Amino acid sequence: MTNCLLASTSTVFGGSYLDYLFDSLRELYKETDEILFIPYARPTGISHDTYTDIAQEGFRNIGKKIVGIHTFRDPIEAIKNSEGIFTGGGNSFVLINALYQFGLIPKMKEVITNGVPYLGTSAGSNIAGLNIKTTNDMPIVYPPKFEALGIIPFNINPHYLDPNPSSKHKGETRETRIKEFHEFNTTPVIGLREGSWIRIQNNEITLKGGNLSARIFEKDGKPYELPVESSLNFF
Amino acid sequence: MTNCLLASTSTVFGGSYLDYLFDSLRELYKETDEILFIPYARPTGISHDTYTDIAQEGFRNIGKKIVGIHTFRDPIEAIKNSEGIFTGGGNSFVLINALYQFGLIPKMKEVITNGVPYLGTSAGSNIAGLNIKTTNDMPIVYPPKFEALGIIPFNINPHYLDPNPSSKHKGETRETRIKEFHEFNTTPVIGLREGSWIRIQNNEITLKGGNLSARIFEKDGKPYELPVESSLNFF
Repeated sequence: MTNCLLASTSTVFGGSYLDYLFDSLRELYKETDEILFIPYARPTGISHDTYTDIAQEGFRNIGKKIVGIHTFRDPIEAIKNSEGIFTGGGNSFVLINALYQFGLIPKMKEVITNGVPYLGTSAGSNIAGLNIKTTNDMPIVYPPKFEALGIIPFNINPHYLDPNPSSKHKGETRETRIKEFHEFNTTPVIGLREGSWIRIQNNEITLKGGNLSARIFEKDGKPYELPVESSLNFF
Repeated sequence: MTNCLLASTSTVFGGSYLDYLFDSLRELYKETDEILFIPYARPTGISHDTYTDIAQEGFRNIGKKIVGIHTFRDPIEAIKNSEGIFTGGGNSFVLINALYQFGLIPKMKEVITNGVPYLGTSAGSNIAGLNIKTTNDMPIVYPPKFEALGIIPFNINPHYLDPNPSSKHKGETRETRIKEFHEFNTTPVIGLREGSWIRIQNNEITLKGGNLSARIFEKDGKPYELPVESSLNFF
């Protein structure tokens, strides 16, 4: 029943907020007029109100109303009554910390697996995985756990970046970081490039977006490319 | 009494392991023959033994013996009896998790502030700050706390990278990440470029390394550059 779109990024280079996803969002939210927005990830530290205004600006283009979850007295009730949910990007630690603080994880998981359409971008996609251990974000707050919604049976690494062969920088590449993850964890990781997304519908999990492949990392395996439109049901 | 060298990276572009630091390490460890090596950060997931061999290779050039802390039955005793300590880079979460697991934080802090010479590179420098909340690493394990040694009254961001104006990538820049950190924390952050280090000696904290400036981030302030050889005692 799950009906999700998990995007690597909200905005692609040269585009405006969510514009490359408008067609897909019309379909995702075809039976939804009002979308509950979760602004907790606070990109660049902006307020919940400001972030909700940005989301509303984006969704105005496809005629949808956005309501911020922070405007409800009881956020668990807001999740329970929602006809559609969107979690925006920002900092995954701040986001998951807020979800734990308000006790939202079980109810979100329940309504999403029962079919309430869900959009995640960046950190909002990261939390659909088993945990946030493959985020790129800085750990600026200490959340009670790293476990996340587990809507999909793997982890996403959003904004996946290929190593730059001409770089003089000695910090770890993204591939090295995910390799280190697999020294301590068995969860497969999908390196999702900007412009890619994962669509979950009718029990099918499919890689979508332009002609972009995704990079797949499994414990003890060599990373490999999976072409767009491939199924991700094999995990 | 603290006598530390906290380097952004172990290796600069085009160089070999630690080579740009040899002169400074001869001075740091001038009264130390045997250095206790802490290999817990396990870069790319290598074993404690392999990592200790790499450290020994580097230190052979200046005639020092390296002993891995993992070879001691009682690592707290090993810290207590050490005449010099070196914590290598890798993953800061894995590193701090091991330090908590073995209960090493209080004893390390005690001996380092009592004058046992300490070298940190990358993650090993990160843990000298108040906490690991400004690491660049992936949170591949969940440590019991983010608090670190607090040898210095601020945080380091190692491998500091300036924003690339020609980048088409939409992930957060390092500056944006540190700005987000300051939405939730008041600790000043030193963006330490590769080739820079911080020297702490005779109660003086000084920025060192080539002609590189460091980027200073303070809550509610505009980031600015601090030239090499500047004092960092103002925090």
